[in-house]
Amino acid sequence: MRTARIVAGGRVQAARVEGKYLIAADGIRYEEDQVHWLAPVEPRNVIGLALNYQNHAAELGLDQPADPAIFLKPTSAVIGHRAPIRYPRGASYCHYETELAVVMGTPCRRVSPSQALEYVMGYTVANDFTCRDFVHNTFRPPVRAKGWDTFCPLGPTLITPDEVADPGRLAITTTVNGELRQQGTTAQMIRPIADIIAYLSEFMTLMPGDVILTGTPEGVSPVRPGDVIACSVEKIGVLTNPVVEEELP
Amino acid sequence: MRTARIVAGGRVQAARVEGKYLIAADGIRYEEDQVHWLAPVEPRNVIGLALNYQNHAAELGLDQPADPAIFLKPTSAVIGHRAPIRYPRGASYCHYETELAVVMGTPCRRVSPSQALEYVMGYTVANDFTCRDFVHNTFRPPVRAKGWDTFCPLGPTLITPDEVADPGRLAITTTVNGELRQQGTTAQMIRPIADIIAYLSEFMTLMPGDVILTGTPEGVSPVRPGDVIACSVEKIGVLTNPVVEEELP
Repeated sequence: MRTARIVAGGRVQAARVEGKYLIAADGIRYEEDQVHWLAPVEPRNVIGLALNYQNHAAELGLDQPADPAIFLKPTSAVIGHRAPIRYPRGASYCHYETELAVVMGTPCRRVSPSQALEYVMGYTVANDFTCRDFVHNTFRPPVRAKGWDTFCPLGPTLITPDEVADPGRLAITTTVNGELRQQGTTAQMIRPIADIIAYLSEFMTLMPGDVILTGTPEGVSPVRPGDVIACSVEKIGVLTNPVVEEELP
Repeated sequence: MRTARIVAGGRVQAARVEGKYLIAADGIRYEEDQVHWLAPVEPRNVIGLALNYQNHAAELGLDQPADPAIFLKPTSAVIGHRAPIRYPRGASYCHYETELAVVMGTPCRRVSPSQALEYVMGYTVANDFTCRDFVHNTFRPPVRAKGWDTFCPLGPTLITPDEVADPGRLAITTTVNGELRQQGTTAQMIRPIADIIAYLSEFMTLMPGDVILTGTPEGVSPVRPGDVIACSVEKIGVLTNPVVEEELP
């Protein structure tokens, strides 16, 4: 099944996707332009994995980490499909990172890789948007670089695992204003999804709605206000967000 | 006002503290041993500040960072007063960090230091428990070191700002099994609370219930399973948690 979380008819609603229509919980059928798209889940934790594709580490001039390089994004960064990414004033190098996002289901702790996928509620597309201007302090977490308001678009929809034969073999592509900028496949992950879940659940309880960003392949490049980013993961969807200059009060 | 979140009468309830009693939302008066204490709030984001006391940076052999060194703890790490901190198997150096915790109230973004405290819902005590065995990868965030399940005790109660004349002048003390181990005052903070809120709100919307851990003074030392840690912040409360060996399935 393919579900969305939308604002329609004056309230936040779950909706089922049928072809080009959204059937909201209130039973009304909407077209996709008639609704306001929210992120398909409200995570309590957004856990990111840096440098999980060998070629991406190389393009940033970084070594591949011995342990998974994990970070957290604040929940305040989460936005939905079509919502604007706000480009910080004065920033000079911000880029998209198109990623397969895993949404956790049943709570779990200390699961083995062989059982990990049983705890997955579904998949969506993430843009782990990052502003490299704020990464100079690598000594400590890049909370500012990756946690700026709007830096975590998720969506458009949540896809249940039965619709994804093998999440480890999905093409990833990013276009900016229609121009192809990034191309890869989840088959290039250094640590596959089941291993990531097992690693995280060794130390933390993964809760329903928690989101794991599984890393981005090579091909990141700067974007500017006025650009439109389309992040695509095969079978999962195309997450589109415009970049706008951040307004200041 | 001084409030707690407790389990009593088969449900999670808010409670008002009156002397040594808890008046639950159901109107029943409980003694503090009759209830199960939860963290006084359910944060969507727990934001920590590392090295915010000059002497503590020195004792860890680290320079004071130019920018605030911020990190996030997963919400799954949060526990309440009296709940056990689970010491990871095989770990050799885990320590308490007693901190004044700021609980945010009205949502805010880009507030000035002079207005920042108006957005505070109240204060509580935090133990930013940390396992240094997992810090070797300083290249990336210490999510595992600081985000292990149970590594974020909060409580016992939430104190509204009107009961705290000056949060920048509160004594901090930690005892382990009754022995004094850490002593300082919030007056030693490098960045005061209002500045921290202003800094964070520059890039992220702070939401009701979000918790900011303001750093710990010098005096951290290792603890072991069997120890009982009492984290005290003057006027705010004493947060007590035993340390136990983590059970494995």
